Amino acid sequence: MKLGVLGPEGTFSETAALLWLAEREQEARDRTELTYFETIIDVAESIVRHEVAYGIVPIENSLEGSVGETLDILSTEPIGQLQIIGELLVPIRICLLAQDSVEKLRTVLSHPHAMAQCKQFIRERLRARGITVNAVESTARAAQLAKEIDAIGALASEAAARKYGLRILARNIQDKVSVTRFIVLAPGGVATAPTGRDKTSLLIALKDRPGALYHALGEFAHRGINLTKIESRPSKRALGDYMFHIDCEGHIEDEQITAAVHALNQHVTLLKLLGSYPAAANPGSEAL
Amino acid sequence: MKLGVLGPEGTFSETAALLWLAEREQEARDRTELTYFETIIDVAESIVRHEVAYGIVPIENSLEGSVGETLDILSTEPIGQLQIIGELLVPIRICLLAQDSVEKLRTVLSHPHAMAQCKQFIRERLRARGITVNAVESTARAAQLAKEIDAIGALASEAAARKYGLRILARNIQDKVSVTRFIVLAPGGVATAPTGRDKTSLLIALKDRPGALYHALGEFAHRGINLTKIESRPSKRALGDYMFHIDCEGHIEDEQITAAVHALNQHVTLLKLLGSYPAAANPGSEAL
Repeated sequence: MKLGVLGPEGTFSETAALLWLAEREQEARDRTELTYFETIIDVAESIVRHEVAYGIVPIENSLEGSVGETLDILSTEPIGQLQIIGELLVPIRICLLAQDSVEKLRTVLSHPHAMAQCKQFIRERLRARGITVNAVESTARAAQLAKEIDAIGALASEAAARKYGLRILARNIQDKVSVTRFIVLAPGGVATAPTGRDKTSLLIALKDRPGALYHALGEFAHRGINLTKIESRPSKRALGDYMFHIDCEGHIEDEQITAAVHALNQHVTLLKLLGSYPAAANPGSEAL
Repeated sequence: MKLGVLGPEGTFSETAALLWLAEREQEARDRTELTYFETIIDVAESIVRHEVAYGIVPIENSLEGSVGETLDILSTEPIGQLQIIGELLVPIRICLLAQDSVEKLRTVLSHPHAMAQCKQFIRERLRARGITVNAVESTARAAQLAKEIDAIGALASEAAARKYGLRILARNIQDKVSVTRFIVLAPGGVATAPTGRDKTSLLIALKDRPGALYHALGEFAHRGINLTKIESRPSKRALGDYMFHIDCEGHIEDEQITAAVHALNQHVTLLKLLGSYPAAANPGSEAL
């Protein structure tokens, strides 16, 4: 069985995939093979074409906000082609990796998001020594280059250090630990049984009426359903025209959730049920 | 009087500034000088330090969504230091600019957002001829480089063509015309009188209670106040912790708006009134 992951090996997406596998049965782990893709869209398309059974992609980070490409996939895929069957929370801890020592380094490479999260370290510990810092397409690509040239360092994960056989020159160098939420995507129609601690994700586009969002949210509030997320996203039709990604506590098979979703229909022009799945364990307040 | 703009000259921010000036009295136009800044944060800081009287920055585009840097400035500036006193809607029409002809071009440069909006033209009219396309920091910078080297073209505005004396080889090459909304920022305490066709912008962080957003929106809905925008933005504290940027129709001096804002206080941990200002005229459905 193939599990599609945003590559290359050694990215935080791979860490999420390994966490997901760690929660599965030994037998399922043994017959699962990770397949790496260059873009989030490639992961989604491979699922729809049944070339992989599942895919794991990042959806939001506590500091950087949402991953637009993932939200766009969820909104543009035809209804029923893709569904969310799980989520994972991964604390993002960044290390400085190299073959040898800081003294040898001329330049340090990383993904722009990782660079944005290590501003203080870059200013005080790298640029202050005359080391330049440049962007490449992923933290894992930075580690690959560090493995090839000893004057190059990488801001990347501990997993990348292991993967590429690099030394960890500094650990936990991010300004503030953030958490990235990953979702597990499957082709439509995969059943996920209620566990008693579930979440349901849906996407709506509202009718153009005063108070439309207010009345839509009322369908949850009146039934005592907690929202864990609401995020607007431009519909790409006109300025001020939004879709809303909503996550709530509960499973679509719960009577109250079924009733809320049914009642929502009167307020929306589009309602896409993205899936019900077990809520991820919080990685701990230390991580947040 | 100085007006701060995201530079360099010839960007769409300059177009917005010229539109803003065109709506002012001749006398005000004559004594206004545009000052160009490298980043949105630089524009905001110059306003707070009273180095410029006003600043104009992009806040959202109908295809690309919000400009995170501008939303972050509005949320992190201490209350009362900055306020929104106006808005402008600018249709984004992109041209291919060069010194000579398409036949001479080896490479075409632009800002990544402009590149994302001209995918079809790039594929069918540039890459198909073996012309490479690369990113630089602004559309105006691309035009500057095109002015220096005749094998370089730029995807940029008509204003940039005039500014840098370049030929327009193709016009309206974007896949779809988008509209960018710009806001005019001033130091806190500048009075903007009601015009009868105003908008009010505010920022809220909700108390951690079930139905908090629903009850907050109720303060607008019950008073018949139309929301023209609601956009969530991560608070940068923890995953799932959001602030909301809300624009509504009306002026803070209107009785209903004053009452709604007053009532909102019971639902929020933070309420920042960002300003009341005349709503921009829509550039027309042709543009959307």
